Amino acid sequence: MPTHEQMVAAVNAYVTAFANGDPAAVAALFAPEATVEDPVGTPAHKGHDAILGFYTESMKTGAKLKLEGPVRTAGNYAAFAFSVSFAHSADARVDVIDTFRFNDEGKVVEMKAYFGPNNMQGLG
Amino acid sequence: MPTHEQMVAAVNAYVTAFANGDPAAVAALFAPEATVEDPVGTPAHKGHDAILGFYTESMKTGAKLKLEGPVRTAGNYAAFAFSVSFAHSADARVDVIDTFRFNDEGKVVEMKAYFGPNNMQGLG
Repeated sequence: MPTHEQMVAAVNAYVTAFANGDPAAVAALFAPEATVEDPVGTPAHKGHDAILGFYTESMKTGAKLKLEGPVRTAGNYAAFAFSVSFAHSADARVDVIDTFRFNDEGKVVEMKAYFGPNNMQGLG
Repeated sequence: MPTHEQMVAAVNAYVTAFANGDPAAVAALFAPEATVEDPVGTPAHKGHDAILGFYTESMKTGAKLKLEGPVRTAGNYAAFAFSVSFAHSADARVDVIDTFRFNDEGKVVEMKAYFGPNNMQGLG
């Protein structure tokens, strides 16, 4: 089972990858057969190629992530609240909570993102 | 599908029930066959009686909840970050994120709580 510190490091690497506009760095956090459900309840992106493609598109918005409060960890799960800002839209903000489930190697096997229209400000 | 406003109202009712020390008011938010996994990754409490029993025990700690940031909603899911304080332990604090999945009637069918030892301060 990954340690709290390993899971927090993965979350911080995820935030840093967005800061750097580096989708490959995000994809590298995931196991080969991982699933990304973003937002939760929609069809999952499954596997490394699909996940890399999804984050490549996501980062075209210039999205930057800021953690809001401590990373919560339980067993092989992490959850974290964050806000998203956008390079070309100073007033826009999206509030999100993500959950990660990790495998024993410390790779993310399942990601779910919780946000919807009511969590978006200043977009469109 | 429940609306954003219905799901936020359920979260606020959950917080208020802790403020009032009213486990029956929490249990009433759940569907009869709901599951509560608290913390995530541990065996679930399943069904109304088990859930009522779990919250009755939980509230004996005098736990009070304070939302930390907006409730995130997506489809029939809600996620919310909060801190927990305790009536008899002024320095204690636990940081938690909960997720709720709702049915079409607006009742919670699945709850998962994300927190662990590293999210606890001043306990014990």
